[in-house]
Amino acid sequence: MIILGLDPSLSCTGWGMIRVEGSRISHIANGQIKTDAKAALPERLAYIDTVLAAVIADHDPMCAAVEEVFVNDNPQSTLKLAHARGVALLACARAGLPVAEYAPRLVKKTIVGTGGAAKEQVQAMLRVLLPGAKVEGADAADALAVAICHGNHRPRY
Amino acid sequence: MIILGLDPSLSCTGWGMIRVEGSRISHIANGQIKTDAKAALPERLAYIDTVLAAVIADHDPMCAAVEEVFVNDNPQSTLKLAHARGVALLACARAGLPVAEYAPRLVKKTIVGTGGAAKEQVQAMLRVLLPGAKVEGADAADALAVAICHGNHRPRY
Repeated sequence: MIILGLDPSLSCTGWGMIRVEGSRISHIANGQIKTDAKAALPERLAYIDTVLAAVIADHDPMCAAVEEVFVNDNPQSTLKLAHARGVALLACARAGLPVAEYAPRLVKKTIVGTGGAAKEQVQAMLRVLLPGAKVEGADAADALAVAICHGNHRPRY
Repeated sequence: MIILGLDPSLSCTGWGMIRVEGSRISHIANGQIKTDAKAALPERLAYIDTVLAAVIADHDPMCAAVEEVFVNDNPQSTLKLAHARGVALLACARAGLPVAEYAPRLVKKTIVGTGGAAKEQVQAMLRVLLPGAKVEGADAADALAVAICHGNHRPRY
């Protein structure tokens, strides 16, 4: 089963594609969709939509996973993130992918063993879990992490 | 020139289509896109996207207008709104419509004459400005109001 993990944001949306077979996971691909900060908001959203649709068409995942989102100490940036997140969830729905949402603490706990793990610890564990994977950046790493989280916590049929 | 006004929200996205010729404005159509509260978030966003794309294809507007959004006292509902708003802006971008954003106070000032106007005053003025228009509800009214605001404040070519 192929799982798409997403870490949406307006400036840089991370995505990661993994394969899960029983308890084995392996890396397929990952990337980051960077938008032009000088472009208008609708155009930036359209760019995310276009690239994400192509990524989904390329790899044909069965489902997607994304972190839950909360309004934090920077409400305006959370608001921008939510615009991008809406577009990312729409791209999944259009492709018929069910989307699972996970609390950030559960993602960290799944990867590192503790919900309070630092980003660097998550990235170090990714190198262990997905050996040889060249990770594009921090947002792609977060996307791979939530994909692995879904691989471990998804309902079994 | 046909202008599409939008008042996006996850539960009920209002839209309003008006025609502007010089200083004359007239009503074309309006409606509300209501999503099933029991459906998953991506499916609700996909429904808004599908209906909005059909509305745009039906009326072929030249541009769109939407109110600016801020995080208010209910951050979680603002977050939901921003998901829907992202999808609505994407629908405009895909159709090649430039989207103008207006502060809520400017919309009220344009319609009623004062930025602190109540919703009821805006709706009463809409009945004067768009005589005979059957307005679907409060969200469609807000959408028509921001369309009229854009009709008055848009750059002239």
